[in-house]
Amino acid sequence: MRPKPLSGFPEFLPSGRIVEQAVLDSLRGSFELHGFASIETRAVETIEQLTRKGEIDKEVYVVRRIHAAESDADELGLHFDLTVPFARYVLENAGHLAFPFRRYQIQKVWRGERPQEGRYREFVQADIDIVGENALAAHHDVEVALVMLEALEALHTRFGVPPVVMHVNNRLLAEGFYRGLGVSDPMAVLQRVDKLDKIGPDAVRGLLVDELGLDADAAGKCLELATISAPDTSFVERVRALGVEHPLLTQGLAALAEVVRAAASAVPGRLVADLKIARGLDYYTGTVYETEMAGFEHLGSICSGGRYDALASDGKRTFPGVGISVGVTRILAPLIARGELVASRSVPTAVLVAVDSEATRSDALATAARLRARGIPTEVAPKADRFGKQIRYADRRGIPFVWFADGSVKDIRSGEQVPADADAWTPPASDLRPGVARV
Amino acid sequence: MRPKPLSGFPEFLPSGRIVEQAVLDSLRGSFELHGFASIETRAVETIEQLTRKGEIDKEVYVVRRIHAAESDADELGLHFDLTVPFARYVLENAGHLAFPFRRYQIQKVWRGERPQEGRYREFVQADIDIVGENALAAHHDVEVALVMLEALEALHTRFGVPPVVMHVNNRLLAEGFYRGLGVSDPMAVLQRVDKLDKIGPDAVRGLLVDELGLDADAAGKCLELATISAPDTSFVERVRALGVEHPLLTQGLAALAEVVRAAASAVPGRLVADLKIARGLDYYTGTVYETEMAGFEHLGSICSGGRYDALASDGKRTFPGVGISVGVTRILAPLIARGELVASRSVPTAVLVAVDSEATRSDALATAARLRARGIPTEVAPKADRFGKQIRYADRRGIPFVWFADGSVKDIRSGEQVPADADAWTPPASDLRPGVARV
Repeated sequence: MRPKPLSGFPEFLPSGRIVEQAVLDSLRGSFELHGFASIETRAVETIEQLTRKGEIDKEVYVVRRIHAAESDADELGLHFDLTVPFARYVLENAGHLAFPFRRYQIQKVWRGERPQEGRYREFVQADIDIVGENALAAHHDVEVALVMLEALEALHTRFGVPPVVMHVNNRLLAEGFYRGLGVSDPMAVLQRVDKLDKIGPDAVRGLLVDELGLDADAAGKCLELATISAPDTSFVERVRALGVEHPLLTQGLAALAEVVRAAASAVPGRLVADLKIARGLDYYTGTVYETEMAGFEHLGSICSGGRYDALASDGKRTFPGVGISVGVTRILAPLIARGELVASRSVPTAVLVAVDSEATRSDALATAARLRARGIPTEVAPKADRFGKQIRYADRRGIPFVWFADGSVKDIRSGEQVPADADAWTPPASDLRPGVARV
Repeated sequence: MRPKPLSGFPEFLPSGRIVEQAVLDSLRGSFELHGFASIETRAVETIEQLTRKGEIDKEVYVVRRIHAAESDADELGLHFDLTVPFARYVLENAGHLAFPFRRYQIQKVWRGERPQEGRYREFVQADIDIVGENALAAHHDVEVALVMLEALEALHTRFGVPPVVMHVNNRLLAEGFYRGLGVSDPMAVLQRVDKLDKIGPDAVRGLLVDELGLDADAAGKCLELATISAPDTSFVERVRALGVEHPLLTQGLAALAEVVRAAASAVPGRLVADLKIARGLDYYTGTVYETEMAGFEHLGSICSGGRYDALASDGKRTFPGVGISVGVTRILAPLIARGELVASRSVPTAVLVAVDSEATRSDALATAARLRARGIPTEVAPKADRFGKQIRYADRRGIPFVWFADGSVKDIRSGEQVPADADAWTPPASDLRPGVARV
């Protein structure tokens, strides 16, 4: 009886896993090139930690030993993101970390959500964050955006992952604007404006007037602000033209302009100021980021984050941070499932050493060892079948080369066979590892 | 308030994580060099899958959504090894896999055990297995042992991880020997002999006589068999000298001799025939492996496995397999905790670019980009502090080089400072990435 897949828990075949590995290696390389250090946290946190923010507890998976007593309190749950565990890790290890602390973290997270395309119960996230002790300079808001865009751009140029556009806003900008209009609860306005894409401008206007008591003019200006979007700093003048004044607005405009200016020169076309971006979670206090992947806008944001004035606090010290998280599974699962992102073979093997007869298997093993000694991934044929069958073994797996006991090697794609020395021959660099490309 | 660590859930500081990454990269490289393909399975299996073997259910962590109804059946649990998930994966995807299928799998597993040194509730395992469709040649029993020993030897030579000795036996050998003595339930004998190290020979002899009704001579021969151990094929003669005959014994002796002979030439001194090795789990049917790490024998086996005639079966086909699993956390956690295995720095960064003043930060950023373009991990100082403070930023993290705006680079270990071009200068290869070594 064949077991059935569990809905919401995607798994890849070996060739899909090769794609995933290539993407994870590339992300890791990009993050390390910028000096981010890896950490891994345990899969579980206390339920108390996980439900601190109140809203998210419906999605938590509780973990308990199968023979725990019925009366035992639920103590542990699987983490649903990498930010809560990171905040806990920072507090727990603050005495051993050097601040500002730059870390990346690539791990699975779990959410008890209803599965649908782009929503999984188990998926891989890759996060970068920079966290300071009591203070963190504003230029790190620019930095994390650029590092993540560079990492995503590398996936585009190396493997053909679709290009992305990051949408950036600043909470201070919106808060200052609303306060400048006389609004006393700017968060309430932000929450309603956040529904713009879902319910449309007229419905949002209705909420602002009916629920929050804004006058028609103020509500209109809130909506006008939300329509402003630009790939350059021209958004500043358009906001100014709305005639609202507030110190927080000025501060937010300057911060956002700085991010947009730096990105326009470093990664042209990949970042826009988009003044309707709010982000649901309420701990962001400055810059906020969302990212769409071209052709996959229906998946929603594949890469989000922001600035938090207090990622963590131990009473004496606060740890402000800024970070961005990319949903690796959200990007890859659809591309791999549709056969759009593929590996050139399903195994690491570059060379299959054929076996003449079981009596000479040790010769084949010795040849394989000589190839491996020079870093060439090599297998020995599992059975001394006729050569046609051994070549088929290679072909089924996409192994490009078959080595014969007569001291020759055959490229089974072209059929070309040449004499070769196992201590000297090397495959073309492009054949040494499986390639990954968009088709 | 500082959160406390959870007992049994080890986490590393960034420098420890660099050690772990280096070890995992090395293992992955060794496995891929031999053509093993990576797979990752979801963290959860159905409780039915996890408890199929009966014995192990006490260790399972059950997973359920926090708002699941009280009456909902417990359906999912965290995997406690990588063999059960792999067997399920093979059955689920058999139509898409090419057999013999060679896979490696490096993932966390969870067990609800009482934590103690060498025993964790969450830990990383690295498994290699070869699985066939209906048949799997005996030479793969030799192969997985050699691949794993080569992988562990690489950890020894590259990083100074202590050397290991793998102890190998064959279930057929023991079964044939016991049957040759007239025993009808050889598994019962095996289970008692397995307690030899714990309770001693006299107690085992007592169990064999009192509980299983063996006569004193037969019990004595069972114990004599268990004392036989050799780094070469001399064990065959010593078994023969006990005067017991059975076809399974002959078959098991030949198979074990083959493994020992191949290992003695490929990885001398790293593998011994050890006829007391039984392995607790009862699905092994041929070769069995256990491994001790020099100086860490008290941790028990750090790397175990064996041959199973039916890793999985769907009724029509069976999938025999042979595999070995190394307990990565079991090896690393004590070495890292004691400061015996260390990284040369706590960040990937090779160069810190100093900042003269915030007004010239963009110049520093441009220099950093030029270094990164050539693969040199680089950070820019977070603040235009005086240079002494910026050098201390590098020093605290072990960053070896600081780059100054005057176009010079300083090795902060030696103090040597030289003029340099950001488009041409390269650090020594040994400084490009953090080093890992035993101290």
